[in-house]
Amino acid sequence: MNDKKLFGTMAFIGIGLIGSSLARVVRREGLADRIVVCARRDETLQTAMDLGLADQVTKDPAEAAKDADIVLICTPIGTNGAIAQAIAPVLKPGQIVTDVGSVKQAVIEAVSPHMPEGVHFVPGHPLAGTESTGPENGFDTLFEGRWCVLTPPEGTDQAAVEKVAELWRRAGSQVDVIDPAHHDWVLAITSHLPTLIAFNIVNTVADLEESTQQEVIKYSATGFRDFTRIAAQDPIMWRDVYLNNSEAVLEMLQRFSEDLSRLQRAIRWGEGDVLEDIFRRSRDIRRGIIDAGQADPPEPVDPG
Amino acid sequence: MNDKKLFGTMAFIGIGLIGSSLARVVRREGLADRIVVCARRDETLQTAMDLGLADQVTKDPAEAAKDADIVLICTPIGTNGAIAQAIAPVLKPGQIVTDVGSVKQAVIEAVSPHMPEGVHFVPGHPLAGTESTGPENGFDTLFEGRWCVLTPPEGTDQAAVEKVAELWRRAGSQVDVIDPAHHDWVLAITSHLPTLIAFNIVNTVADLEESTQQEVIKYSATGFRDFTRIAAQDPIMWRDVYLNNSEAVLEMLQRFSEDLSRLQRAIRWGEGDVLEDIFRRSRDIRRGIIDAGQADPPEPVDPG
Repeated sequence: MNDKKLFGTMAFIGIGLIGSSLARVVRREGLADRIVVCARRDETLQTAMDLGLADQVTKDPAEAAKDADIVLICTPIGTNGAIAQAIAPVLKPGQIVTDVGSVKQAVIEAVSPHMPEGVHFVPGHPLAGTESTGPENGFDTLFEGRWCVLTPPEGTDQAAVEKVAELWRRAGSQVDVIDPAHHDWVLAITSHLPTLIAFNIVNTVADLEESTQQEVIKYSATGFRDFTRIAAQDPIMWRDVYLNNSEAVLEMLQRFSEDLSRLQRAIRWGEGDVLEDIFRRSRDIRRGIIDAGQADPPEPVDPG
Repeated sequence: MNDKKLFGTMAFIGIGLIGSSLARVVRREGLADRIVVCARRDETLQTAMDLGLADQVTKDPAEAAKDADIVLICTPIGTNGAIAQAIAPVLKPGQIVTDVGSVKQAVIEAVSPHMPEGVHFVPGHPLAGTESTGPENGFDTLFEGRWCVLTPPEGTDQAAVEKVAELWRRAGSQVDVIDPAHHDWVLAITSHLPTLIAFNIVNTVADLEESTQQEVIKYSATGFRDFTRIAAQDPIMWRDVYLNNSEAVLEMLQRFSEDLSRLQRAIRWGEGDVLEDIFRRSRDIRRGIIDAGQADPPEPVDPG
């Protein structure tokens, strides 16, 4: 008997960057006997087979889910409700369903109503990613040293939560269990708003005249380059994030815009002391992050 | 005779991250016989001596400048006019004066009127930097593979421009000569606006309630972390950038805000197709940057 094993059969609905990275961990660590992969496109299923990540492939989510000990929904969150509905008829008591979506309240609202009695839905969100998409770009160290946040609704089976937590710990993550609404609020500011701003500034550049654009690109080994990297991520995934966490994002966006107006005014009226105070303050936050152990060592940034 | 040598005596007015990094290159490559360093604080001068970057130190810019073949002004740009005024009485025909400021029109307006006939002022801007400040944080590879932009006003002595260009090439940079107004416009979007936005979002977080802030910091190994890194830079240097490039920055900020309002509206009204179109467009810009050879290989970014 393999004492590393956590599950008999695992079903991955969606096998993109996140799903395929986790599947690589499952293979490396021997966490399951069998992996069934479900995706919409033949090409994706073929890639999953070629990479050795799937023992069985299917385009039917219910087919994938029916004999799985755990079903991992790893698709853009806008699809989660339909997937839950599709797999509901085949789910049996004791099965675990989890997901990896960047918004948790909306996913819970979309998925929970479809879950039969005795099926354990454990919403999850690994705080990891790259600008790349697709199964071929996953890698088995993606989750190492990162947080994975679980947001089980009240009354969720503790053993099921612990099993999902253990899966992520085997992938190298630290696991936190927090309230779904709080997750969505915190992620709105740490992730959803920064990414929206990155998408936005890159688009502002796209509207500049061609000749200026060329030089912007040429000299972009600066602050702007960091933004383009963030803004190169999957458009569908991010569309779904904003549509499904709109309340928290709009609130943060409002605060951001008010603060930006203050800076704009200070620049217009030459208020150097206001600018300096605001800039100094941001250093304290940075120090907090370094103290929390989340920062990398200094590396080249914006040259001014 | 040392055929690597470009100058007899070099004077550095200001010896922070940029100045000390260039001085390290000068030492390593043997580009000058002698380096004189001027700074306001005893501690900075002592550090420059301890690092072996100075043959002579002084707090008087004129004392530093008087026998130098080239004077490098490496201070926040708000000080450049006063420095030019201070060194003007001792400058002699044939001497070169250059700077490293992130804004070029304002520096030219502040410095040029003080330059005596026959003194060659060659404004420059190395597109390199880190979040660290001070002479102890410089390093001799800072400029390798980066651009250095020179913006000599019309009529500037070509031999002097070439000499400054050669200095930066020896530091490993590629040199471009462009119009100062165009420089300020392009830098407003590649560097000044992204940094302003980074400062702003970090301050928006600073206003959140303490408990949320802690979690923001805890989970900030995401898009937000990139912003804190950018926003950890020198407040004085950046204050001076915004005060001195206000017109271009305000124009870009206006465009950015208009574009952000469009995104805000699309989120509020659930216009997924608008979001998706905008996000897709930003990928093209990213591809342009990769084609221009300015992008790093994919690395972990925002997890959503």
